[in-house]
Amino acid sequence: MRFTRLLNFTKLYRFGKPFATDATVIKPEEKDLKNCEKVNYFDIKVKENKTVLTLNLDYEDRIYGLGETLGGLNKRGKIYKLYATDDPVHSPEKESLYSSHPFVIIDKKFGFFIDYPSEIIFDIGYTKFDEMIITINSKDFDLYIFESKRALEVIREYLRLTGIPYIPPKWAFGYQQCRWSYPDAKTIKNIANNFREKGIPCDAIYMDIDYMKDYKVFTIDENKFPNFPEFVSEMKEKGFNLVPIVDPGVKIEKKYDVYEEGVENNYFCKDEKGEEFVATVWPGFTHFPDFLNPEVRKWWGEKYKLFTDLGIRGFWNDMNEPSIFFVPERLKNYLDKIYELKNKEVGLEFFMIKDKILLLSNNRDDYKSFYHVTPYGKYSNDQLHNLYGYYMAKATVEEGFEKIIPNERYLLLSRSSYSGHHRIATIWMGDNMSWWEHMLVNIRMLMSLNMAGFFYTGADIGGFGANSSPELVVRWMQLGIFSPLYRNHSALGTRNQEPWVFDENIEKILRNTIKLRYALIPYLYSEFFNSINNLKPFISPLFFHFDDKISKEVEDQFMIGNSIMATPIIQPNARGRYVHLPEAKWLYWSASNFKERNMKIYEPGDYYIKAELNEIPIFIKENSLILLNEEEINYVNEKPIKELTVIGFVTGSAEFTYFDDDGETYNFKNGKYVKINIVVKKTENGYNYEIEKDESEDFVSTVERIKFEIYDEKGNKHTQIFEI
Amino acid sequence: MRFTRLLNFTKLYRFGKPFATDATVIKPEEKDLKNCEKVNYFDIKVKENKTVLTLNLDYEDRIYGLGETLGGLNKRGKIYKLYATDDPVHSPEKESLYSSHPFVIIDKKFGFFIDYPSEIIFDIGYTKFDEMIITINSKDFDLYIFESKRALEVIREYLRLTGIPYIPPKWAFGYQQCRWSYPDAKTIKNIANNFREKGIPCDAIYMDIDYMKDYKVFTIDENKFPNFPEFVSEMKEKGFNLVPIVDPGVKIEKKYDVYEEGVENNYFCKDEKGEEFVATVWPGFTHFPDFLNPEVRKWWGEKYKLFTDLGIRGFWNDMNEPSIFFVPERLKNYLDKIYELKNKEVGLEFFMIKDKILLLSNNRDDYKSFYHVTPYGKYSNDQLHNLYGYYMAKATVEEGFEKIIPNERYLLLSRSSYSGHHRIATIWMGDNMSWWEHMLVNIRMLMSLNMAGFFYTGADIGGFGANSSPELVVRWMQLGIFSPLYRNHSALGTRNQEPWVFDENIEKILRNTIKLRYALIPYLYSEFFNSINNLKPFISPLFFHFDDKISKEVEDQFMIGNSIMATPIIQPNARGRYVHLPEAKWLYWSASNFKERNMKIYEPGDYYIKAELNEIPIFIKENSLILLNEEEINYVNEKPIKELTVIGFVTGSAEFTYFDDDGETYNFKNGKYVKINIVVKKTENGYNYEIEKDESEDFVSTVERIKFEIYDEKGNKHTQIFEI
Repeated sequence: MRFTRLLNFTKLYRFGKPFATDATVIKPEEKDLKNCEKVNYFDIKVKENKTVLTLNLDYEDRIYGLGETLGGLNKRGKIYKLYATDDPVHSPEKESLYSSHPFVIIDKKFGFFIDYPSEIIFDIGYTKFDEMIITINSKDFDLYIFESKRALEVIREYLRLTGIPYIPPKWAFGYQQCRWSYPDAKTIKNIANNFREKGIPCDAIYMDIDYMKDYKVFTIDENKFPNFPEFVSEMKEKGFNLVPIVDPGVKIEKKYDVYEEGVENNYFCKDEKGEEFVATVWPGFTHFPDFLNPEVRKWWGEKYKLFTDLGIRGFWNDMNEPSIFFVPERLKNYLDKIYELKNKEVGLEFFMIKDKILLLSNNRDDYKSFYHVTPYGKYSNDQLHNLYGYYMAKATVEEGFEKIIPNERYLLLSRSSYSGHHRIATIWMGDNMSWWEHMLVNIRMLMSLNMAGFFYTGADIGGFGANSSPELVVRWMQLGIFSPLYRNHSALGTRNQEPWVFDENIEKILRNTIKLRYALIPYLYSEFFNSINNLKPFISPLFFHFDDKISKEVEDQFMIGNSIMATPIIQPNARGRYVHLPEAKWLYWSASNFKERNMKIYEPGDYYIKAELNEIPIFIKENSLILLNEEEINYVNEKPIKELTVIGFVTGSAEFTYFDDDGETYNFKNGKYVKINIVVKKTENGYNYEIEKDESEDFVSTVERIKFEIYDEKGNKHTQIFEI
Repeated sequence: MRFTRLLNFTKLYRFGKPFATDATVIKPEEKDLKNCEKVNYFDIKVKENKTVLTLNLDYEDRIYGLGETLGGLNKRGKIYKLYATDDPVHSPEKESLYSSHPFVIIDKKFGFFIDYPSEIIFDIGYTKFDEMIITINSKDFDLYIFESKRALEVIREYLRLTGIPYIPPKWAFGYQQCRWSYPDAKTIKNIANNFREKGIPCDAIYMDIDYMKDYKVFTIDENKFPNFPEFVSEMKEKGFNLVPIVDPGVKIEKKYDVYEEGVENNYFCKDEKGEEFVATVWPGFTHFPDFLNPEVRKWWGEKYKLFTDLGIRGFWNDMNEPSIFFVPERLKNYLDKIYELKNKEVGLEFFMIKDKILLLSNNRDDYKSFYHVTPYGKYSNDQLHNLYGYYMAKATVEEGFEKIIPNERYLLLSRSSYSGHHRIATIWMGDNMSWWEHMLVNIRMLMSLNMAGFFYTGADIGGFGANSSPELVVRWMQLGIFSPLYRNHSALGTRNQEPWVFDENIEKILRNTIKLRYALIPYLYSEFFNSINNLKPFISPLFFHFDDKISKEVEDQFMIGNSIMATPIIQPNARGRYVHLPEAKWLYWSASNFKERNMKIYEPGDYYIKAELNEIPIFIKENSLILLNEEEINYVNEKPIKELTVIGFVTGSAEFTYFDDDGETYNFKNGKYVKINIVVKKTENGYNYEIEKDESEDFVSTVERIKFEIYDEKGNKHTQIFEI
């Protein structure tokens, strides 16, 4: 093993000759790598080409990280297998999801990142209560150790190493409506019209797989979407971004250009015999583009022009684990075994038929049987398995957007990802279920993914699979106002979840909920940028902010930015919940409506707070401020913000930095933004307000007025208006 | 429809000509049934042979009952389909489980019971937030309406109607160890020896399907269990009850006596053509005994002699929905469709193969295709589907135990059941999972099943399917001390869950946990009998005891008897939890060990209480008493109880009635029991103690000494010993 020191307190231990994954933005110089014998913290053993790292855990050790995984926020007590898979049932025993983020924080001790692109198994206090056993399926990997006892410092260092999080366009903070599927232009227009007619704000409508002609990537079914360019403009005019899905599998079909080009240029992954590998996914038999090959990425990236030329700026790359329904050869072998039963009496062979068919999908042996041609040589997909989603995104962004729409921001969700992905795009949380339990999974994953640099992310609000009840959709939509990605999505064959499908009262609650989200966008957008600037998670657990014992255990509350604590209702039929209010005092806003502000002061402590079906509990931290845009808008960029309302709970002094820019470009990097620094100080008789504007010539703030609504220790409201 | 009034406030509405299910012990006289036109509360419509009952729900209405169902304790917001099914994955969206208890309580309004033995769908505020829509698959059913606003009164009336709950032997309150499978005598002996050598109390070890010869019911595999009678005695001597499983499906095998007798006497269910219906379950091809036929029950009941003659008194009737893996004809049709694919290229037909195989098991059409010959005529299984488990139990009990071991108590668990089953036997909660989420399901179901008269019941502790972590097993075992049935069970292929399989520290915690359970048995057993006598649930939600608003929402705490509130830890890595302490003050015992009593007084309110991994939170209500047996025992009947410890929190006056009997017979019904009435009253200087013994000549109490350990308002301990 070789060793070097990187950054402030990061140590790199290089084992063997790892594949260069692109996870990090800082690469060690070969010359700096010195031989070394020992790694702190871990006991390391090599067993039959696997490396096993063992670490003793103390009773009180709490373990965080691992990005997109199930289990608690504290990851202790479960096995996690990082090997990207398309499993649509996220039940608690599942070990693998779509992404791999092998970054772990041992709170109060240190953190580490294992840069290895195939299977890693983290057994965290599961087999043995007091051991973490990490099994890496190789002898070649990089182990980065972050030697800080502070979780926030560990994360900052991880982000210095792997890169600054991706920034979506501002409209991506608006509400987004999805469904598998709105199958044609007519349906989408109806959905769009419904939003506008019912006065429910919305910024994006998704196009799931049915918009394509026979599920062929980079095609549009003309029957369902006649005159697609006009349709896109029409939607844009109404303030809707269309977000088409893009799948990697290319249908095998003569004369289909993407297929023909791919075959002609050897762009597809090949099998052992050097023939194009065939996997079955939505389009039927397909080939997989070899995104590990730079040439392939160039080719693929340009394809997005089909959409970007029409003004489309939002995409979701799906199925890129890559998901495999089955490989024809394996299915054939399976069926042959069934054919052998013909003319025989079939008894408990039934279980062979039943259980083995499940092994046909996403079979590891299939991933071993096709290859990538990388600049570093040829590797089986299995060897680099966890990278496919990332390299698809790299094709989309670096060879697509950066060339065809340079300087324009895009929304790019991917299903699969690897560490480092957060620099160029983000992910959504995959195919969850309309289960109350999945709201808690959503909350925990928001925090874990933020630790791994995915500041902008979210789950399918209301749940993707299974049917939802009106109450579940209400409560999840309420949670969603604190989710950076605020997207309601549901699967084919399940109950619809658009805000108006239940009854008038539910529609009213959901309208008010979404309007509250829109009112909060100045706060969210500003804090999002502040988080990026500080390399500090946008969504974070309480213990990042407070050091008391209970804060360390709370997994169903979270901070969004520095001022707001969310305490969503995640139990059926609950009309309230327990909340932990650490350290500071809190201003409690039981929000049923952004205009009605029923505020109450809480002392630190533990409470059961009430929250009727239409109420969203919002806690504002003592000596902090939030911003509201009280103007009603249909979509984010409909109207310039002329007036900001500052709500605060100030017993001493509070400060907030409002940030705004065009929301669509990277011009903020060249100073084209506005920052308004707002300070509120308690004085003997009231409050002192400071407003300091920092704007460039090229970007002038539209804000003309700032209204203050400050609450004092007794809950008394102090208002003040400033023209600026 | 016809109508009559029964009992105190029960109204029966008879629709059409319902099948006489045996659910009730009180039957109306035909002459008392008068024609009537209207039913209070419900809007009733008949649609194509289905009857739809609709009821408006107010925003604050809380709905309870439905016995063994998923969803919240408050059943609102979900669809429940009562149609017995063997579904081993109890994920939140599932609508059906193994049992049917169509008894519903609308708190503060009324209750009702629909006596109908096939599919009933309860859509409770799911499709419409403010409607309960009940669809009964028939025009023939009995609707009982209990007109009381008090939930406890509704339950009492339901139990008056359907019968007094079943009472298991006393040893059934001990710890029970199960596994699919301890496949042979040697393994079971090892398990038993482990318990004794490690000083971990245990009263029962289960025998899962592998004890049978080729899964043939009422056989014992002589290879695995040589000299079975001796083995049973040996186990009995060590204090272990063996509990064999009994499945209804009889293997089709010439010369197998049960099969031959069944065919000869027409004891098996027949198909449309009058031939024995064939279903595949564990033994392969089987026939189902027609338990609806009284003759068949007589035959079947006697079979248990095989076991009872050896002294076995515990059984679990499994697979009696009845579960069907597949019916040969349906499998054949399915396979024929697959065979047609031979020599064709198979594409998305894959989904036909994959999805349709799941429809082969427990297919409703199969239940329509076989018949029962009842005293009231011939019915398809589908028409009486939900009764099969009950009638199997009826065979076991009324034609078996009552005749072959009259006056002896038995443990009889069944997987499937119908209302009324609680009179003669009980159920366990079926195949749950080692999911943290299923601890909450366990808690909710304990309360719901208690409402339906299943006072003695429980879930598979540690979870049946999936692997468990050491922490999960600890926390579930801790919850389990408050579960009437305290059985640890796990499935083939999953991690073992015996108390010693993890590490020494976990073993120590589990030993102390089980010992605490044993120490509590005098309390549990007494309160169980008190519950039976009062027709009041043994395990009950807070709102049965306290009327404050929060108590109505609490679904993860429960009362066991009248003195103890359980607040189990059901989150991973939690070292505490929120508790609601209603109304009264509470004595908090953070129990890591029954001998160390770290007591603390809590005022009413809401708290975050600490509970390290080895600590079980126990709350004792103000002015109530609990009993402990502080002698260490290996099994319930090892030693007579000589000394009782009374722990109480008394600020005014508290009373408790200790109950004991032989624990094995029904002689208590003839006065052969002891009751010791204990009263503790606060006086000016201390406490006044009253002990009043009520014992018969035939049953003399073994208790010689009562130790009092009474805590006052300040948490000061007052001790006193009385020889009696």
